[in-house]
Amino acid sequence: MHYQDYFKSRLDALRDDGNYRVFADLQRKRGAFPKARHMAKDGAGDVTIWCSNDYLGMGQHPDVLAAMHNAIDTVGAGAGGTRNISGTTHDHVLLEGELADLHGKEAALLFTSGYVSNWAALGTLASQIPGCIVFSDALNHASMIEGIRHSKAARVIWKHNDLADLEAKLAAADPDAPKLIAFESVYSMDGDIAPIKEICDLADKYNAMTYLDEVHAVGLYGPRGAGVAEREGLMDRLTVIEGTLGKAFGVMGGYIAASAELCDFVRSFASGFIFTTALPPAVAAGARASVQHLKRSNAERECQKERVAKVRAGLDKMGIPHIDNPSHIIPVMVGDPVKCKFISDTLMRDYGIYIQPINYPTVPKGTERLRITPSPVHSDADIAHLLGALEELWHQCEVARVPQAAQ
Amino acid sequence: MHYQDYFKSRLDALRDDGNYRVFADLQRKRGAFPKARHMAKDGAGDVTIWCSNDYLGMGQHPDVLAAMHNAIDTVGAGAGGTRNISGTTHDHVLLEGELADLHGKEAALLFTSGYVSNWAALGTLASQIPGCIVFSDALNHASMIEGIRHSKAARVIWKHNDLADLEAKLAAADPDAPKLIAFESVYSMDGDIAPIKEICDLADKYNAMTYLDEVHAVGLYGPRGAGVAEREGLMDRLTVIEGTLGKAFGVMGGYIAASAELCDFVRSFASGFIFTTALPPAVAAGARASVQHLKRSNAERECQKERVAKVRAGLDKMGIPHIDNPSHIIPVMVGDPVKCKFISDTLMRDYGIYIQPINYPTVPKGTERLRITPSPVHSDADIAHLLGALEELWHQCEVARVPQAAQ
Ligand SMILES: Cc1ncc(COP(=O)(O)O)c(C=O)c1O
Ligand SMILES: Cc1ncc(COP(=O)(O)O)c(C=O)c1O
Repeated sequence: MHYQDYFKSRLDALRDDGNYRVFADLQRKRGAFPKARHMAKDGAGDVTIWCSNDYLGMGQHPDVLAAMHNAIDTVGAGAGGTRNISGTTHDHVLLEGELADLHGKEAALLFTSGYVSNWAALGTLASQIPGCIVFSDALNHASMIEGIRHSKAARVIWKHNDLADLEAKLAAADPDAPKLIAFESVYSMDGDIAPIKEICDLADKYNAMTYLDEVHAVGLYGPRGAGVAEREGLMDRLTVIEGTLGKAFGVMGGYIAASAELCDFVRSFASGFIFTTALPPAVAAGARASVQHLKRSNAERECQKERVAKVRAGLDKMGIPHIDNPSHIIPVMVGDPVKCKFISDTLMRDYGIYIQPINYPTVPKGTERLRITPSPVHSDADIAHLLGALEELWHQCEVARVPQAAQ
Repeated sequence: MHYQDYFKSRLDALRDDGNYRVFADLQRKRGAFPKARHMAKDGAGDVTIWCSNDYLGMGQHPDVLAAMHNAIDTVGAGAGGTRNISGTTHDHVLLEGELADLHGKEAALLFTSGYVSNWAALGTLASQIPGCIVFSDALNHASMIEGIRHSKAARVIWKHNDLADLEAKLAAADPDAPKLIAFESVYSMDGDIAPIKEICDLADKYNAMTYLDEVHAVGLYGPRGAGVAEREGLMDRLTVIEGTLGKAFGVMGGYIAASAELCDFVRSFASGFIFTTALPPAVAAGARASVQHLKRSNAERECQKERVAKVRAGLDKMGIPHIDNPSHIIPVMVGDPVKCKFISDTLMRDYGIYIQPINYPTVPKGTERLRITPSPVHSDADIAHLLGALEELWHQCEVARVPQAAQ
């Protein structure tokens, strides 16, 4: 085989399908977020970011930045080792305590990312509990799917958010087999929310553990920002709550919160936890400051809600199709990868608006979209400019409007 | 199943075997590294860290800290998105350019860690090239093993650093099948070094790609710190060079350096690259400052070599068994998990010396060890204190001395 030719041919196929990804090279400006400088090859320009997962702008929060500066000044840059071999710093220990408290659990365990936390925790639980069957929601995130696959445990996929299907599948399984139900609260591409209570009821009935990914909910829902399970008073019913420090908390890292024994078990057996350098103390310190702030402050959450409602109302008025959901995520449906990329490119070039097109494999082919995430740092003027630009482009590109759009 | 009981029983079994890990909670002191404060439950104490993988103390280097501070001040905390969705910042782009240049390759691709880079890059190459056979050194790191396993490609394990065995296995495989030889330069637990040139010769003969993990070598070997392949003038013969930013470079992150097409291929198809929040810009900026410094400066490498030689000479004089190897890693062999942990605990408590015991599963049972990593920041007094402590403990614990020790 000629390897280089093979790589080229696969990349060409992506280009032909309109699925080749071009990353926007951005230079944020502290204090001015969501404004950033787009460092394009043919000249830099100022843009407003409308697709960030720094949902509340915490990546710019003075407390977060101060905590990071302080950690760098007092302890330095990296952790210098795996958690076991000199890499557990006091900042990691404090953050794990903070996260356990956030979710009302005995313990929490930090990972280098949300991806790694799902992959390592699910992979370890499912592989190390003999005979474990994993019941996985059909739309679970890649990191959960890979973790479950990695475990080689039996896997049963249930229809997305479908309780009847989940129950039928639980009932059909060996009653004595250990079971784990894995699902998310807010699904990031459609923005819909799982029926957590009912899933916990089924888990009780069939003696299954529950594993809830709150990656797109932590910081954003619940009186202390612990997620949808907190808002609904369900945290104690979940076996494992998983979250990220890289989205609403604005920094980086992932974690699980659970019983002391479960965390200790994953800590002791998960390859993806054990054999990797720990997060830099400054990252842990910054994330902790963010968690602490959002435990106390509702202002960011309230303001985000209001901004989201305002964008939605504007889209509705113009008949621009977006998925109606109970979360902060606004998926504007285009339904074609080439058009989706064209609109995105035009928004960037002609309007200074950055919304990355979401194409396959992140979403199914035919459901290509612009995923808009309004945040407390988007001004009224930002919103007006966004809506005006979309109006013009929808006209120009002849993209379907409601009610024609299949939703 | 009663899940909590099951977790407890597995943890108890670890304790009974002496393999239960207790993490030392450390608070580094910037500027004073390798000194740190050990935040033990029964009272804090000052310790000297002798087992860090911040091999050159770059995690304390003023240029690195200044770059991190500066990035936080100018762009904020987190990247706020995956690389594709608003998370590619200019700091990532610059760092990838710096790393490509370091290794003399067309391109480099950043990951959140060295673990993820191995897992994702090997997993993607081996699974996305139809019929690929991976030839994996028997002592490859967990992250490489998991990546290869993940790919579900055919895997052939060759005896550690054994060219005859590798050739026999290459010769036995279908000549037309795509092939990938995966190995490390410096093996981190024994400190031995692979015959890179000879492996590249075999790769040429059998039309195989080569994938070299230089995680324990980048920053440390070669005139610009690009690793063992640079020192030996072999960089252009390797298909992929993989490294970490979390060890000698002192921060966090991982990468591959390779042809533009190969990097683009992994960028386009690797789940572990695509579906995760990008590194914080400050981490990328700090790592870049570190790489840049070690490209220019040999002082840290020279000093480390001298420190390593000094510790080795002291151990030899006392007859304390350590693996003789051509690297900077000094594995002092104890050969028993309980004794190993006892010595480590005593060093910490009575001598203020921190060396984590390395037990199963990091190393095979019966080869438990203290892995010592002298660095330019260890003083003559630190070395004298270490050697004195080991002398006393070897006496007290009746651990075998050379020549009795099986090496
Ligand atoms: C549902 C879900 N889980 C986990 C992750 C991974 O989290 P992280 O970005 O911290 O790796 C993501 C996205 O990145 C996600 O959307
Ligand atoms: C050989 C080897 N490769 C990869 C890794 C992972 O690198 P990182 O710590 O950056 O995840 C390690 C250790 O952690 C290692 O020893």
